Formats: sequence, structure tokens, C-alpha cells
Amino acid sequence: MDVNKLLAKLHADLPSENTGIVASYIPELAHAQRDKFGVHAVTIDQREFSFGDYEEGFSIQSIAKVLSLTMAYQRENKDLWKRVGVEPSGTPFNSLIQLEQDMGIPRNPMNNSGALVICDILLDYLADPKKDLLAFVQSLTGDETIYFNERVAASERETSDRNRALIEFMRSFGNIRNGTERLLDFYCSLCSIEMNCRQLSRTFLFLANDGVSLSGERIVSISMTKRLNAIMQLCGLYDEAGEFAFRVGLPGKSGVGGGIVALLPRDYCVAVWSPPLNKKGNSHFGMAFLEGFTSQVGESIF
Amino acid sequence: MDVNKLLAKLHADLPSENTGIVASYIPELAHAQRDKFGVHAVTIDQREFSFGDYEEGFSIQSIAKVLSLTMAYQRENKDLWKRVGVEPSGTPFNSLIQLEQDMGIPRNPMNNSGALVICDILLDYLADPKKDLLAFVQSLTGDETIYFNERVAASERETSDRNRALIEFMRSFGNIRNGTERLLDFYCSLCSIEMNCRQLSRTFLFLANDGVSLSGERIVSISMTKRLNAIMQLCGLYDEAGEFAFRVGLPGKSGVGGGIVALLPRDYCVAVWSPPLNKKGNSHFGMAFLEGFTSQVGESIF
Amino acid sequence: MDVNKLLAKLHADLPSENTGIVASYIPELAHAQRDKFGVHAVTIDQREFSFGDYEEGFSIQSIAKVLSLTMAYQRENKDLWKRVGVEPSGTPFNSLIQLEQDMGIPRNPMNNSGALVICDILLDYLADPKKDLLAFVQSLTGDETIYFNERVAASERETSDRNRALIEFMRSFGNIRNGTERLLDFYCSLCSIEMNCRQLSRTFLFLANDGVSLSGERIVSISMTKRLNAIMQLCGLYDEAGEFAFRVGLPGKSGVGGGIVALLPRDYCVAVWSPPLNKKGNSHFGMAFLEGFTSQVGESIF
Amino acid sequence: MDVNKLLAKLHADLPSENTGIVASYIPELAHAQRDKFGVHAVTIDQREFSFGDYEEGFSIQSIAKVLSLTMAYQRENKDLWKRVGVEPSGTPFNSLIQLEQDMGIPRNPMNNSGALVICDILLDYLADPKKDLLAFVQSLTGDETIYFNERVAASERETSDRNRALIEFMRSFGNIRNGTERLLDFYCSLCSIEMNCRQLSRTFLFLANDGVSLSGERIVSISMTKRLNAIMQLCGLYDEAGEFAFRVGLPGKSGVGGGIVALLPRDYCVAVWSPPLNKKGNSHFGMAFLEGFTSQVGESIF
Repeated sequence: MDVNKLLAKLHADLPSENTGIVASYIPELAHAQRDKFGVHAVTIDQREFSFGDYEEGFSIQSIAKVLSLTMAYQRENKDLWKRVGVEPSGTPFNSLIQLEQDMGIPRNPMNNSGALVICDILLDYLADPKKDLLAFVQSLTGDETIYFNERVAASERETSDRNRALIEFMRSFGNIRNGTERLLDFYCSLCSIEMNCRQLSRTFLFLANDGVSLSGERIVSISMTKRLNAIMQLCGLYDEAGEFAFRVGLPGKSGVGGGIVALLPRDYCVAVWSPPLNKKGNSHFGMAFLEGFTSQVGESIF
Repeated sequence: MDVNKLLAKLHADLPSENTGIVASYIPELAHAQRDKFGVHAVTIDQREFSFGDYEEGFSIQSIAKVLSLTMAYQRENKDLWKRVGVEPSGTPFNSLIQLEQDMGIPRNPMNNSGALVICDILLDYLADPKKDLLAFVQSLTGDETIYFNERVAASERETSDRNRALIEFMRSFGNIRNGTERLLDFYCSLCSIEMNCRQLSRTFLFLANDGVSLSGERIVSISMTKRLNAIMQLCGLYDEAGEFAFRVGLPGKSGVGGGIVALLPRDYCVAVWSPPLNKKGNSHFGMAFLEGFTSQVGESIF
Repeated sequence: MDVNKLLAKLHADLPSENTGIVASYIPELAHAQRDKFGVHAVTIDQREFSFGDYEEGFSIQSIAKVLSLTMAYQRENKDLWKRVGVEPSGTPFNSLIQLEQDMGIPRNPMNNSGALVICDILLDYLADPKKDLLAFVQSLTGDETIYFNERVAASERETSDRNRALIEFMRSFGNIRNGTERLLDFYCSLCSIEMNCRQLSRTFLFLANDGVSLSGERIVSISMTKRLNAIMQLCGLYDEAGEFAFRVGLPGKSGVGGGIVALLPRDYCVAVWSPPLNKKGNSHFGMAFLEGFTSQVGESIF
Repeated sequence: MDVNKLLAKLHADLPSENTGIVASYIPELAHAQRDKFGVHAVTIDQREFSFGDYEEGFSIQSIAKVLSLTMAYQRENKDLWKRVGVEPSGTPFNSLIQLEQDMGIPRNPMNNSGALVICDILLDYLADPKKDLLAFVQSLTGDETIYFNERVAASERETSDRNRALIEFMRSFGNIRNGTERLLDFYCSLCSIEMNCRQLSRTFLFLANDGVSLSGERIVSISMTKRLNAIMQLCGLYDEAGEFAFRVGLPGKSGVGGGIVALLPRDYCVAVWSPPLNKKGNSHFGMAFLEGFTSQVGESIF
């Protein structure tokens, strides 16, 4: 099978009109061009395939939550799970309702509240948090051009009232320790990481490779890798996780910048990017493309 | 590896005391002996392994929801998913709260409301619903000793007020078509199916075998098999689905009778039984045993 | 002050267009003519004032819940309040959400679930429930022409799925004792009572008259009267009770037939009728008229 | 009737043991002595009655929310009600759940979120907010010894995470305009006002006197007075407002310091104080005492 041709064909098969909407609640994200489309896949034996705007950078947004979780998991194997759960939430990504019922313990580390707790944990471990975070992310591929988009981070900090509410709310239950502005600054930098599809699929390859990164370094144990994949499978696409498992069948994570990364354990990792989002906040074409991809390739985890 | 020895060792490694509680809300279930324990695994090339009370029958309860779903899916590939979703719920198995927000569409076919909708669909297709259902279940293994436990079914019908509420509530949204008592009778029979661990793992083998049953018959397509597994993975253990994915890493389904069935696609299916349940309503020792099993075997879908 | 003239003037002051919508979920109610308008007031010294279609009968619907509550309160002074609360709900009249949180105890006897519990209580006391209920209602005014509208009752029974759900749900918590169909039949008859504005204001006069009816009979004690008025004030207009207290300032009760009855303790009772309802399910013009009325008269309970 | 004797007798009739619990979530409040009890009533013709520790000051806490609401209502008659509702909430005083459903508009100005919005409004009007607020409160009685307890205010600011969450959450919906710390500082000062029962009943007399204060000044119009009383009646005792209307039958407001103020329009105002709170956060003995009081006096608004 010529995978590059398959990628092109799958793109050609997408509907002519994209009914999704480019995210605009973070003003800086609204600049994304709605007809951009890129995809890049890399296998654990490092063959690579791609199509479209796969070399164009975009804001990976919530996809980065898997990377911060990985860093925290390296440092806190047990206590981590006392402060954040591993269950899908059944509610939108920034909801406070469940947090009230659950006494300030986020359902999982993939929604905003859980990712904030993870950042709060990392602030207790990292000497120079933003620098250390970026160094870790770059180390996964050895690519030192990966960076924080400062304009996006600033734009995000300016529209962070809801996240501030989440922080103070969890603090009232004793589940946040660091100062609000310091925490928000770190969190907004995390979300502002910019990559292209190639960088993104390479970065996440360690999760397809039993915990060993592209550059051959063990990042997490096999068991931890499985658990990170389980969390992505169950919680990675917010309240559309079930639909993603049903249609695509791979552990994955989406971001409001229009990116989705997904992976088949012990096989490959794929990153797709198309800015317009569906109603659940996931890339409309990204979902459709990945569904076609796993249907054609005939492989999924199930 | 001697799998039978492994099963025995894993059982020996369980805590000496079981803090779970045998389900009693269906009076007939309360008779189960709390120290019973059985496990049976079967591979797609039909090797079999077992330990303990694996030949003793028990009420499979909600595990049967996967079987009714399979029957409905055979008959309605598309319209089915307009009447029931595929998302995890984040709420207990008999909750009405989400149903009110979601206008009578159950989140998934694994909780009570969704399983009732599936039964309502089947009533429109089956000439002799209970007989046809049992025939289908028996056909998966060719074992005609599998039966409805009439005492359990009767006990369940007598404690069905909550399910009646779910039915009438969904009917008020137009999502139930058949008469309440007829529907409940069918649903209670479904839940009263009795099997032992060997029968259970053999019955579910088709989901590990790309849709082909133990007796070599194609039950559903490969694609449909993947989707059934995805639903089990995301929704099969109620609001503990995330924990199960995290700790065990296999698609599975539990029942309040203390049974859990789980499977590794294209490899094996395993059924475990221990009546005492944890707070989420899943077999306490069953969860622990399967966690140990996938840790030792080192294989999961992730 | 010429009260009849005031009533006419207040009617003339209503907006020319009524943006409300006539209830249609009970098909028989949809026949109501949207431009009908009637009002009738009676003082405790039995002066009477009226305007418009005050002699035309309409379905009093939920207004009747106060009458069934009064009958139950006469029979069960203490135990009653273990099965139903006296708190406003903050949710729509037929919601199941709170009922789940509150373990099957309705927040108050003015919403559907609470009124069903009250009917369930009455079924345990009344020899011939429908006949006894009608006799009680007629006895408040001595007017034997008040009747159940059988067509409305039948129409209501046919669209009772939601109420059936409430009944079964509360039964699952042990808070319903009688058979579902018997209870629904009684409840639908209660809601089908037909009165005109004059009959309605006269019927409710006992609540303005410290518990003594128009015909001079003590119905409930002074203390019980106060408590019935308190319940109407806090819960009588569903989730618009606060707005009604704020704008009108009188204990009152509304029905989806477009009627509202309100009263000033130790002074008068007024009934108004206009079928189109606002978004909260209360008569749009009825609310506006009563607001004008208490503003002009300058009297409210506050 | 000798009212002073009645007050003493009603106190003697209270149960020997108080099962309530002194509030401790604001550390400074935990110092209150649990067996303190005071009551003071004043009529609109300025007769005064009292019993017990009625001259001992205590933290009036949420009772002060009525005073800030009055100040805001003087300044914004219409727009005010676009930013806060007048409906009872059916949920605890500091819940965020409803706020999420209601898009950041608090149900009423008596719960924490609503009172924060009222403070936000006042910050836009007052030149020297804390000074102006205290001057207004003192002006109601002419008593310049009324003060902010700075220790309580400081203690409250230190335990304000939940209120910070409410502020940021409402800000995310555009319903808060001023800086968080400035707003919290003002709000905590408001709640820290200290009065004794005599000062409290005198302060609230204007609400029993059609809007005219003890010192003879018109504070709000008659219509506005009625509306303030309506809000207190429906929302003044949190999710126990119905119980208070049912048992006591007067508009009232409680605070976690153990104070309750209640009033009979055009008659009298009464303040009672006993620190131990019931489960809903209202003074346990205060509720019981007022129930006895209105039962004995035989007067309520209903």
C-alpha cells in the first residue's frame, strides 16, 4: 500500500464543504485559515508519510496536556491519582458542575480542571517550569525549533476567567497549592506550544512505542505508557471520546487549534490538522479523516 | 508460561479479605455465596485455561446487554444510533438525570436506559423475542444448556420500579414504542441469563475473533466488532470504565452478579466471577484479578 | 374606588399583543381561545367584582393541587411532610433531576411529583376518591355545577408518560403506595376540574378567610391556612414564584389552562384567566394583570 | 400581652440541648459562645422588647446582604435585575452549579454569587465604598457605634477561595466588572458588620415601616420595600426559605453568625441571635424561637 497516496485520497474524499467553525474564544486562534489541512504519520520503525500542510505550525492547545501529564507521571506515580481521576466526565471540557459534586477532584487530566492540577503538581517539581517543560517537549524528538507562541499565550491569559474560576474553586477544596497567576501563566504557555503535524506525530511516537521516544530514550515504563493511552482513549476527546473510539478506534487527543493526534500501540502515530471544529470542539475534518484512515488501513486497537 | 498456574497464583495473590458487598437489591441475587471465585479464558485458537468455580453458573445480569446489543446491531446498523449514543455517561447506571438533559436519548447501550431502548428495538424485529434471544445466545457456543433463570427474572420484575420509571420517561420523549410490561418482561429475562465462566468466555469469544463465533459462524462484520469493543471499552463498567481501562486495559463488561468478561482483540477472551461488588457496582476481586492478569501477561490493547 | 372600573382599566392597559402561547401538550387544552380574558374578585365580606369572560369555564389544571393538598392536610397533619417538602425547587414543574438527588421526596406539593404523592395519600383515605374530591370542592362554595371535564381528563391520561415516570421513580424510593393507573386516573381527574373565574375565586376564599369557606364552614385551622398560603407563596408559580412574589406580592397558584388565583389574607381572593402562557408556563396576561392590580390597590402581603 | 415575658417564656420553652453547630469555616466565627441567646423586637411606633444577650454584638454576616442590596436598589432600579434574579435557588448558598446553567446570572441577591454582583454594582457608584456603606448602615438608626469587625473581615478574606471562584466564574460570563481583590475586600467588610440584636432589629425596621427608617428618613419607596421583603421571603434563608415561610411566616434573613432578622410589614421587626446552626446553615434556636413567637402572637403575613 502506498500510504502517501492513501492520505491524498482520503483527503480528496472529504466533503467539499466544511461545516465546522474555527475557535475564536481565544482571539489569537481566530486567525487560523479554515481551509488548511495537513497530516503526518510516523511508524515505530520510523517510516514517515504525509500530505498537505503538514509542515505548517499550529497551536496544539489541549494536545499538550498529554505532555504535561507525562512529565508529572514521571515524578509522581501514585499520589498523582489522588488529586485527579481517570474517568470520562460526560460533560464539556470546562464544566464546574462535576467538580462541585466530586469535591474538587477533576474527573481526568484531559479536561481543563485536571490539566490545571497537573500543572500545579509540576510547579512543585520544576526549577524553571516553562523552560523545563519546553526542554522536555523538545527532547522527545530532538527538535529544538518547537516553541511557545507568546502571542497565543498572552491571548489565552487575557481570556482565562473561567480557568481562574476553576483554580479558585479547586483551591477551596484544597486541591491547588500554587499562586493563581503563576499557575495560569504556566498553563497558558503549555497550551501555546506550536508544532506542525510532523513534529506532533514524532513527539507522540513514544506512546506508540511502549514508552521509548523517537530519539531512543525511555520516557515512561511500558505499564505507564499503557495507562497514558487508556486515559487518552477514554478522555482525550472530551465528551466525544465515545464517538472517537467508535468511529476511529485509537487512543487520541484533540486541541481547539484543530489538531488531533492518534496512535496505534506498537505500530504508528498520526497527527492531522484542520482548524474548523465541530460542536464538541474537535476538528471536524480531522475526525472524518481519521475515521476513513482506520477504516482503510483496517487496523484499530479493537 | 503455564496459564493455569498463573490463574491459580493470581487468585492466591488476592487480599485475604474481600471488602465488597454482594448485590441484594434483586432479592434472588442476595443468595450468591460471597467466597465463590471462578475464572476461565479461551483463545481464538481455542486453547482454554481455568481456575476455581469456573463451572458453576451465575446470573450474568448486565453482561447480557452486549448480547442484545449485538442482535439489534445485526438488524439496524444506522438507525440504532439515533436512539442511543456511544458516550460514557459519568453517572451511575440507573440515573435519570442525564436522560432529562439529553431529551430521552440514553448516553450508551450499556446502562439501563440504553439497554431498555435496545430491547424495545428487538421487540419490533423478533417473532418470539425471549425464545429468539435465547436461541441466539446458545448459537454463539452451540451450548443449549444456557438458560433464563426464571426465579431471578421474576425477582427482577418485582423490583423494577426504577426501570419502569426509565421506560415511561423515555416514552415521554418518544424513544420507547412497546408496552411497558412486555418490554420489562423481555429485559428481565435478558438479565436473568445464567452461565458459568467457561460458557461466558466462549460466548464472548466472537468479539475477540473479529466477529466470528466459537462455532465458526460470522456474527457481525469486523468493523461492527471493533465498534462493539469500543462501546465496551468506553462504557462497559459504568462510571468505573476509566479505572478499568487504566488498570486492566481491555474492553469488558460487568454485571451485578459479580461476573466480568474482558477480551484482547485477535487473541483471547476471559471471564471471571466473584460476587462481592465494589462501590461502583463491579466485582471487587474480578477487577483486581484482571488487573493482575494483564500486568503479568503484559498485554492489553494499549 | 370603583373596583369594577379598575378591573376594566387594568385590562385596557395590557399590551395589544399577547406574546404567550396556549398550552398544547395536553391536546384538549389546545382548543382554548387565546383572546379570552376574565377576572373575578371576592372579599371576605363577600363583595364581588368582575370583568370580561369571568363566567366562562376553563380547565383549572394545577390550581387544583391546592385543593387536594388541603384535603390531605385535613387528614394527615404531620406525616404528610415526611413524604413531601415545602421548599421551592428552582427547576421546572415536571423535572426528575431533583427527585433523584432528594431520594424520591418531592420538594413541594405544587409540582407534579408532589401533587402525585398527595393524591397517593388521599387514595388511602377516601372511600370513593373522585366522588369525594368533587364533593369537597363543591362544598367550598356550595356550587354543585363544578365538574370534572372528562374529555380533558382522558386527554391528560393519554399524555401521561412523564407522570408515569415520576410515579414509578418515586415508587422505587418507596414514596408511592397505590397502583399506577389508579393513581393517574385520580390525578388526571383532579387536574381536569373546570371552573370559571367566579367559581375559582369563591372556592379559594377560605385561604383569605383564615380557613373558613364562603359557605361559613371551617375547612382548616388558622395555622394550617397560613401554612397553605406560605406554600403557595413559595412554590405556587413553579420556577417563577420569586418573580410573582416580587411583582405581585400575593400567595397564588397558576395552571396551564391559563388561570391564576391569588389572595390577600384577611381581605380578598382574585382569579384571573387568559390562556396564553409565558415561558415558565404561567398565564402571560394573568401575571401582568395581577401586577397592575396590586400596584393600583397598593396592597400586598409585604 | 406582656411581650417581654413572652420572649422569656419562649426562650424557656426551647429544648434543653442545642443540636446545632457553631460555624467554623471562617475561623474567627468559631470563637462564638454556643450558649449565647438574645432577642430584640421593635415596632413601627417604636415600642421595644427584649430578652437575654440582646446587647451583645455578633457578626451579622449574610444578613448584611439585604443592606447592600438596598443601597444598590436605590441607585439602579431596573438594570439591577438584569444582572441578578429574584428566584429561590433550591441549592446551597455557595453553589456554582446553577450559575453554570444560568450563564453567570445568580438566581437571587441573597446567595453569595448574587451578593457579589450587588457589591460589584456598588463599587461603580460609591466614591469610598467601605466608608459609604458603613455610613449608610449607621444612618438607618443613627447609631455610629456600628462597625466592621476587622478581624472577622481579615479571617473571611483568608478563606475566600470559593468566593474567588464565584467571581471569576461570573466574570467569564461578563457579569463582574471590578477587580477581584477589590471586590472581595468590599464583600468581606460587608459581611463583617457587627451589631447586637437591638441594633439589628432597629436597622431593619424600615422594611417593616414601608421604607421609612427608625430615624424617620425614607430609604426606599413603598413599592421597593415590598419587593425587598418579597426577596427576603423567597430567598432569605437559603434552601430553607420554604421551611421558614411555613413555620414562621415572615420575610427574614439569616447569617452564619447565628443571627436571624424577621419582620411583619407595617407592624414590627425582630432580631434573634443564637450561634449554633442547623444543617442548612441557619440558627437552630433562632428558627425555633421565631416559630414559637409567630405562633403565640398569632400573626404572620399569611
